[in-house]
Amino acid sequence: MKLASLKEGGRDGTLVVVDRSLTRGVKAAGIAPTLQAALDEWHAMAPRLNALSEALNAGEAEGAFDLDMATLAAPLPRAYEFVDGSAYLPHVERVRKARGAEVPESFYTDPLMYQATSAGFLGPRDPVVVSSEAFGIDLEAEVLVVTDDVPMGVTPAQAAGHIQLVGLVNDVSLRGLIPAELAKGFGFLQSKPRSALSPVFVTPDELGEAWRNEKLHLPMRTWINGAWFGEAECGVDMQFDFAQLVAHVAKTRPLTAGTLVGSGTIANQDTSKGASCLAEQRTVETLRDGKASTPFLSFGDTVRIDVTDNDGASIFGSIEQAIVKA
Amino acid sequence: MKLASLKEGGRDGTLVVVDRSLTRGVKAAGIAPTLQAALDEWHAMAPRLNALSEALNAGEAEGAFDLDMATLAAPLPRAYEFVDGSAYLPHVERVRKARGAEVPESFYTDPLMYQATSAGFLGPRDPVVVSSEAFGIDLEAEVLVVTDDVPMGVTPAQAAGHIQLVGLVNDVSLRGLIPAELAKGFGFLQSKPRSALSPVFVTPDELGEAWRNEKLHLPMRTWINGAWFGEAECGVDMQFDFAQLVAHVAKTRPLTAGTLVGSGTIANQDTSKGASCLAEQRTVETLRDGKASTPFLSFGDTVRIDVTDNDGASIFGSIEQAIVKA
Repeated sequence: MKLASLKEGGRDGTLVVVDRSLTRGVKAAGIAPTLQAALDEWHAMAPRLNALSEALNAGEAEGAFDLDMATLAAPLPRAYEFVDGSAYLPHVERVRKARGAEVPESFYTDPLMYQATSAGFLGPRDPVVVSSEAFGIDLEAEVLVVTDDVPMGVTPAQAAGHIQLVGLVNDVSLRGLIPAELAKGFGFLQSKPRSALSPVFVTPDELGEAWRNEKLHLPMRTWINGAWFGEAECGVDMQFDFAQLVAHVAKTRPLTAGTLVGSGTIANQDTSKGASCLAEQRTVETLRDGKASTPFLSFGDTVRIDVTDNDGASIFGSIEQAIVKA
Repeated sequence: MKLASLKEGGRDGTLVVVDRSLTRGVKAAGIAPTLQAALDEWHAMAPRLNALSEALNAGEAEGAFDLDMATLAAPLPRAYEFVDGSAYLPHVERVRKARGAEVPESFYTDPLMYQATSAGFLGPRDPVVVSSEAFGIDLEAEVLVVTDDVPMGVTPAQAAGHIQLVGLVNDVSLRGLIPAELAKGFGFLQSKPRSALSPVFVTPDELGEAWRNEKLHLPMRTWINGAWFGEAECGVDMQFDFAQLVAHVAKTRPLTAGTLVGSGTIANQDTSKGASCLAEQRTVETLRDGKASTPFLSFGDTVRIDVTDNDGASIFGSIEQAIVKA
């Protein structure tokens, strides 16, 4: 099934079930008011939401309406935790190579992850509001999963059973602020503002064969100002699968229902696939030409992020955002 | 007024108003079910909660009951954001000195802060459950503030007006995991598990003269296994006040109502005041004796954290926790 949240009913929106084609929706009001409420009682709620989803896809759901993507908030307009990985090592390898550094051997066995902000997620068509272009505005197209309650110390095999939803995120990054912030030693804060989520999150079964080994096996399609920017394969070069990422985070604490775990920006060894963030593209240019030629985003620029099935149909709906001056 | 949450009514507990002496409570059920709900509509809710607080302190609140600290959850059992500072530079200076490093000049003008986990906070009397003593279990006694909605780009003067509540936090740290984690470059994750919050959060006016210049001017009293461990002055050597810390976080994003902003472990230049974390104490020993003699916490150890007024009465209630093997 596919789940979304309307921009109505309060800070957490109103939960809606969306049909497979992303054209029709129906409020889940009789089941759970919000997606967080559904995740809080997932094992009781999921079967009821599934039944509503089946009725909707059969054209038999009472109260169904035509879906307008602009009316959607992020599926979780605010969440209790977002931990983001950097699971595509070609990105890490390239960035390090560009500055003449080695990738530590441990990076191939121990996931690189960070605590991200979850207090507010932008809706899929909301603008990215930034106060200065000098911050070096960048997109990062990623896959994420949402868990139910995960006990502390789970194995990756156990963690796999706690992955309930899959979605996309534009992990907005302010590249100009990153070097000084990371040099302080405590990770990202100002350099990682609010991210945007895809219109819908879907259950793994909705992905069929495209969800295998706790990875999404489809290309991440990105456009900047309408021009093709990349279609890196999400299932290729992902060093750690989502179950491993979830288990990594849960090593020293339980995870609360509704925790989002991100993959990191999608990047392949094969650079002909393009990139999923400008930092990646600029690094490829630096390694090839000695300098980066593609600029970071400017006010008025637009980004589009989408994952389509083998028939070309959007699965999660597209993230489409304009960069806007605060 | 003083606010707490009972461990009943769901994941977010049940909001109660607590009297000045921390002996009586009354449910705020007719006003807001949870503290998060109150913070979401703070300007409408605060006057009503204040009226209930006045009635309670006058012995006139209907439904008031004797308060049992063991029945309290964290005031916010889960929250959308926790950003923690490291505002006491004597701590930073000492740690750096012990490893022969300098404190960068920028640390005196640019706050060092990090994104912490907010998905679950331990109640004030809940055990700290850890799977291995080898992780190097440590307390960190800190002050924190809670904001309402803060617009992006506020000045410190504007940020001050968004500080609605003050409380304490035991920012549990796993010292053995920190060096390798920070060496990866993306900050804390496994090394900072769930923290515990004080029994109550209080409005700044409740602190009287002890709340000046957006700082708490009282000693942070800590005990380990019942023995005095420290009473560092919260109002001394705090390089950045809470308004500056809030403004730092809000530079590139708005803050959601219910955001917690921590001070970092309380540390003074004057080492006779003791310490607020074992890492601090061990650093003082290393600088003085050439090696640390105080061990990190073991299973069965207890910690106690409290701030009392000039009459010796606890303001926030005490955090009292045992260290327990998972």
